[in-house]
Amino acid sequence: MGHRAAIVGAGHTRFGVLEEGPRALLKSAVDAAVASVDKGVERAAVGEAYLGTLGFGGWQIGNASAVLAEEAGMPGVPTTRVENACASGGTAIRAAVRAVEHGDRDLVLVAGLEKMTDVSNARRRYWLGVSGDTEWERSAGLTFAGVYGLIASRYLAQHQVGADALAEVAVKNHENGALNPNAQFQKRVTREDVRKAPRVADPLGLYDCCPVSDGAAALLIASPGSAKKFTDTPVYIDGVGAGSDTLAVQERPELTRFGATRWAADEAFHAAGVSRSDISFLEVHDCFTIAELLAIEDLGFAKPGTAGGMTLDGTTRRDGRLPVNPDGGLKAKGHPIGATGVSQAYEVFLQLRGAAEARQLSHPSRALTQNVGGAGATANVTIYSVG
Amino acid sequence: MGHRAAIVGAGHTRFGVLEEGPRALLKSAVDAAVASVDKGVERAAVGEAYLGTLGFGGWQIGNASAVLAEEAGMPGVPTTRVENACASGGTAIRAAVRAVEHGDRDLVLVAGLEKMTDVSNARRRYWLGVSGDTEWERSAGLTFAGVYGLIASRYLAQHQVGADALAEVAVKNHENGALNPNAQFQKRVTREDVRKAPRVADPLGLYDCCPVSDGAAALLIASPGSAKKFTDTPVYIDGVGAGSDTLAVQERPELTRFGATRWAADEAFHAAGVSRSDISFLEVHDCFTIAELLAIEDLGFAKPGTAGGMTLDGTTRRDGRLPVNPDGGLKAKGHPIGATGVSQAYEVFLQLRGAAEARQLSHPSRALTQNVGGAGATANVTIYSVG
Repeated sequence: MGHRAAIVGAGHTRFGVLEEGPRALLKSAVDAAVASVDKGVERAAVGEAYLGTLGFGGWQIGNASAVLAEEAGMPGVPTTRVENACASGGTAIRAAVRAVEHGDRDLVLVAGLEKMTDVSNARRRYWLGVSGDTEWERSAGLTFAGVYGLIASRYLAQHQVGADALAEVAVKNHENGALNPNAQFQKRVTREDVRKAPRVADPLGLYDCCPVSDGAAALLIASPGSAKKFTDTPVYIDGVGAGSDTLAVQERPELTRFGATRWAADEAFHAAGVSRSDISFLEVHDCFTIAELLAIEDLGFAKPGTAGGMTLDGTTRRDGRLPVNPDGGLKAKGHPIGATGVSQAYEVFLQLRGAAEARQLSHPSRALTQNVGGAGATANVTIYSVG
Repeated sequence: MGHRAAIVGAGHTRFGVLEEGPRALLKSAVDAAVASVDKGVERAAVGEAYLGTLGFGGWQIGNASAVLAEEAGMPGVPTTRVENACASGGTAIRAAVRAVEHGDRDLVLVAGLEKMTDVSNARRRYWLGVSGDTEWERSAGLTFAGVYGLIASRYLAQHQVGADALAEVAVKNHENGALNPNAQFQKRVTREDVRKAPRVADPLGLYDCCPVSDGAAALLIASPGSAKKFTDTPVYIDGVGAGSDTLAVQERPELTRFGATRWAADEAFHAAGVSRSDISFLEVHDCFTIAELLAIEDLGFAKPGTAGGMTLDGTTRRDGRLPVNPDGGLKAKGHPIGATGVSQAYEVFLQLRGAAEARQLSHPSRALTQNVGGAGATANVTIYSVG
């Protein structure tokens, strides 16, 4: 069905516990994206900007999209903050695609940002928690780890899958993260390590949970028609999709499938006009190990209950048939909330251009990213191609 | 240049200190918008939803766009929260226009919401304050009233205008608000009342400042081609524009002009292909009385320093040549942050269809709304027509 937009530049900060504040992180990511454009780009050519951020710790910066325009050196540019909890970054990409696909704008900046480590644990729990259901679930003491722990318990019982399948997600993603210089954790773990780690919300232990992270990522997205002005190898965006669901998981017909992901995937595949078998690799929202299994299934790459087996048999490793999270995923790379969706697209940009160095996949041609907000209350899916 | 989108339904709650929480307010506004559609509408026909909200008091609801989909009775619909401080509502409308203008979606819901009165004054100041510059201005004790007080001082001195010009903005907007059953203040005030009111940030007194408000508003926006399925008298959106500026006012070349408004207006007029003289009335962002004068000038309807004279000579009254804020404006109608931009479009919908009852203007055919985030750090402008 043709290309809808094209990524012509991408930048990324280190993810982790960082010294830099929100403004410096934004500036670093945008400067890197501008510098990455093969044929060069004038900042004045950018016609619009989008920022995905949860705005952690009580918005250290409010009206944050204006700050993006400032730090990007793009004074006066129309700018919009979008916030869909942990899906903010992917939602910002979707908005940018809308801006360029019909020729409204030739070139749009998208940035994702979170500064999470400069507030206390108690405040952080509060800030994260309100993206789940407060009236019925959070007020009963349920954190996001708790929600995903319940989902994992149900999944393992329903499909008679062992906890090793969850552990192997962590092992694989740490293995990938060890090869990513931007990853928060560049350290391998064994199934034994995962099994022996302190429990967080049974069956999820410490290594089943993504960390708390600072970081930013940025993309320059051009209209398909103008992309070759900036680079000979743009990465095209061919389909975007989005969906939503109830905030409270208890309101849904089943715990172990995310409708929002399924509807978003259907829309994205329909728009792109490709099928599952055309996709070389996935970047999915593995905030907890169980979430990677759900994602693979909800996206239509495995039947319910079978993604664990695919993980254990090596299918989702970098050298497997369908690599998943070659950058280490949220699990090992880190999860600075608003940056995550943009970071996924950054990895796609590197991989599809053969620039992912030590973790480069073998000749990928199409990729899919999935970014989830809350425990599946919002989701978006994007499909990319090269060449 | 043709229509870009069409408003086919609009709903509004009372603005003020309300009993209802955020979910109930959203539901009321959306239900009213659905009920307002002349030829009826199925909720399942809505293909996307946007929510403008600052998410007051620490997001009583996070991932709020999912809550909009839930309360609107539109399960699964792609949904996005946009936040540009006090310009969130107008920014959500702009995003919705993008969604329908090229046929991506036939029908889109836009809602604006704020629940401000259930947090303490201290927390509210914090939540509002971060939408201004924290590093240099807020840390020195400057509130938004303080920033606008400085701007007003400079404006009066620079243009040798008397404070009566500010007072008359309040008198006019309270006069209009007295005829608006949704307004927070339905009470007339005199110039003497305004002059004698307690000082907030000299020269701004109590009646120069908009109140703290709860409330919601909602629109159903259709593609131009499908609008007549829903009503014989859609209100068309012909141009949208947006701009940004530094968060800190001290970084700007002048205090008394908002570049963001000027750039947004230029874009909107260019897109709509109409000129200032084609506009029947304005809805502008009068968070403080001085802001209405700046808006009239920055939008190009008066030379710098002359909007006060236009106000004193009655030009901007309901029976004047260019009515401004016939619904009472933020000043008298109230300013529930994220709802304000959507509420402005609601007033346009009523006025252009001749349905504004006691405050109906005489045969308006085109209108302009201006919505500002922070002290001019973000702004958007929308131009509408009927018939």
